Amino acid sequence: MMKEMQARLRLVFGTANQRTFLVPGSGSSAMEMAVLNFVEPGMKVAIFANGHFSNRLTEMAERQRAQVVRLDRPWGEVFGAEEAGAFIERERPHVVGFVQGETSTGAYQAGSAITQAAHRVDALVIGDCVTSLGAMPVELDRNGIDIAYSCAQKGLSCPAGLSPISINERAWERLAKRAEPTWSWYLDARLVAKYFEPAHVYHHTPATALYHAMYEGLLMVEEEGLEARWERHRRAGAQLVSGLTQLGFEPLVSKPENRLWHLATVKPPAGLDEAALRQRLLERHNIDVATGLGQLAGKILRIGVMGPLATEERVGYLLGAIKQEMQ
Amino acid sequence: MMKEMQARLRLVFGTANQRTFLVPGSGSSAMEMAVLNFVEPGMKVAIFANGHFSNRLTEMAERQRAQVVRLDRPWGEVFGAEEAGAFIERERPHVVGFVQGETSTGAYQAGSAITQAAHRVDALVIGDCVTSLGAMPVELDRNGIDIAYSCAQKGLSCPAGLSPISINERAWERLAKRAEPTWSWYLDARLVAKYFEPAHVYHHTPATALYHAMYEGLLMVEEEGLEARWERHRRAGAQLVSGLTQLGFEPLVSKPENRLWHLATVKPPAGLDEAALRQRLLERHNIDVATGLGQLAGKILRIGVMGPLATEERVGYLLGAIKQEMQ
Repeated sequence: MMKEMQARLRLVFGTANQRTFLVPGSGSSAMEMAVLNFVEPGMKVAIFANGHFSNRLTEMAERQRAQVVRLDRPWGEVFGAEEAGAFIERERPHVVGFVQGETSTGAYQAGSAITQAAHRVDALVIGDCVTSLGAMPVELDRNGIDIAYSCAQKGLSCPAGLSPISINERAWERLAKRAEPTWSWYLDARLVAKYFEPAHVYHHTPATALYHAMYEGLLMVEEEGLEARWERHRRAGAQLVSGLTQLGFEPLVSKPENRLWHLATVKPPAGLDEAALRQRLLERHNIDVATGLGQLAGKILRIGVMGPLATEERVGYLLGAIKQEMQ
Repeated sequence: MMKEMQARLRLVFGTANQRTFLVPGSGSSAMEMAVLNFVEPGMKVAIFANGHFSNRLTEMAERQRAQVVRLDRPWGEVFGAEEAGAFIERERPHVVGFVQGETSTGAYQAGSAITQAAHRVDALVIGDCVTSLGAMPVELDRNGIDIAYSCAQKGLSCPAGLSPISINERAWERLAKRAEPTWSWYLDARLVAKYFEPAHVYHHTPATALYHAMYEGLLMVEEEGLEARWERHRRAGAQLVSGLTQLGFEPLVSKPENRLWHLATVKPPAGLDEAALRQRLLERHNIDVATGLGQLAGKILRIGVMGPLATEERVGYLLGAIKQEMQ
């Protein structure tokens, strides 16, 4: 089962990385495995900061007593190659972190604008693919992401609690040169990786129920076909944004090519009480729509259409419910 | 749901500790939360070492750059008050770790022999209750354990992946005085505790499927009654050890009062191939019996009768299968 899951995870990650396996915890546990194994005390870490989860990356790097430098952009925007290059060449960091699919803003940044600059100064790149994996192109190898992690419950539509990670050979070699052991035993990448190697060296007791669910979820991705799945999410997202725009909502992410397909982040029309709308959707339609996180709390709606929800019929139903409750 | 689960967890832990909640990972993630929040770099940590999981505690304390001192006893034995007191008074540690229910050996140590000595030198005591919780008395408050953790899949018989922890006021006050933040964000006890407080401040995405299972599992403990549940495990264990002894097996833990009720650890009779016996039990009877861990690998059988397996009928079936496959 583990071997089959690893092969299917490589497919959705778009990588040949041998070290592609599952972290025993939420997406944030996988984020922490990425940070605490590859960031050592005193290292310089450059964070591309444009949302809630780049702040979390910052905090985790600081917990490793790294020297963190940030390039900040307003939430909802992404970074261009020129500014990314100038920042990295000025700072010359050991490790670079960015968020490919930022769930707090709905922004999508494939990554190559950042990774090309990072590799010129020999930095490792950590890419947060929590929201992108399984719903739109992640393409680690093509985008040059050295260490990537995700979660179970978004694009893969499995129960939460078991989180994919993928680490390339370049990063793995760097890990072997760590001066001191990681500060966590539970999230030591080398120990967890050994559990997935053919000898399956005991590390922790696996959450077997979640393994079976993930196995099935990955099989469903394979059966649908990864590109067909992307296309389904792309179409459903376009339908949603188009419908919301007609209802007077305005996308937070201005350029369509920088938007996550399966997560619409929209500002409500003037005068609309977004909290009351969300409450009515939940009570009357059993539809759970999120508000913004952090600085966007109360200012935007975040509407996910992922996995089984990413169909024309479901999006139509959702738009109908929103229209009804706006009246 | 969280509030009800916390109340029922306090019941099985035998505590009034307000900070009794769930760690998002395996039992070892809860062990690591206990160690990395309460052990700071340079602190002296005293480990009572008599099995595989006291070795794991040692490794985790070393990862926090603590100065670890150990009192070792042969695997299968427990510690007396006199030797515990002498060790602690000589070493005067900041933190003491011991294992109440040691799954690698089948030994049970309630803890007061250790905690009384530890509190005389103002040390905090971490008690590993992974194997004891829900099947036999844990009694944190009576035994003086300051920080305890467990798992889902043993005495509570829930799916693995979500792990109880309980921290008393004395330890919580010590935590507030930490000089520096913990090295892990994911396992920062204060952040996870806040998620369980009435404001439910978002920390990680919960494994909702496992929460529902734990909720039901704890309800079943309450319905059965905690003391009735203990008694059921005690009777089933006595029946198992008695039957195994009649078949020529010898308990590893010599004194009955030091044995876990629901986990028999036995040396096979001379000439019996334990690996072949376990293989036949698995293939012909669908019964999975474990071998020893670490230094006891291949030397003992470890036979758990927990939760729904701790009945006269199930133990009788198990003993019948072992008898049949020994012939």
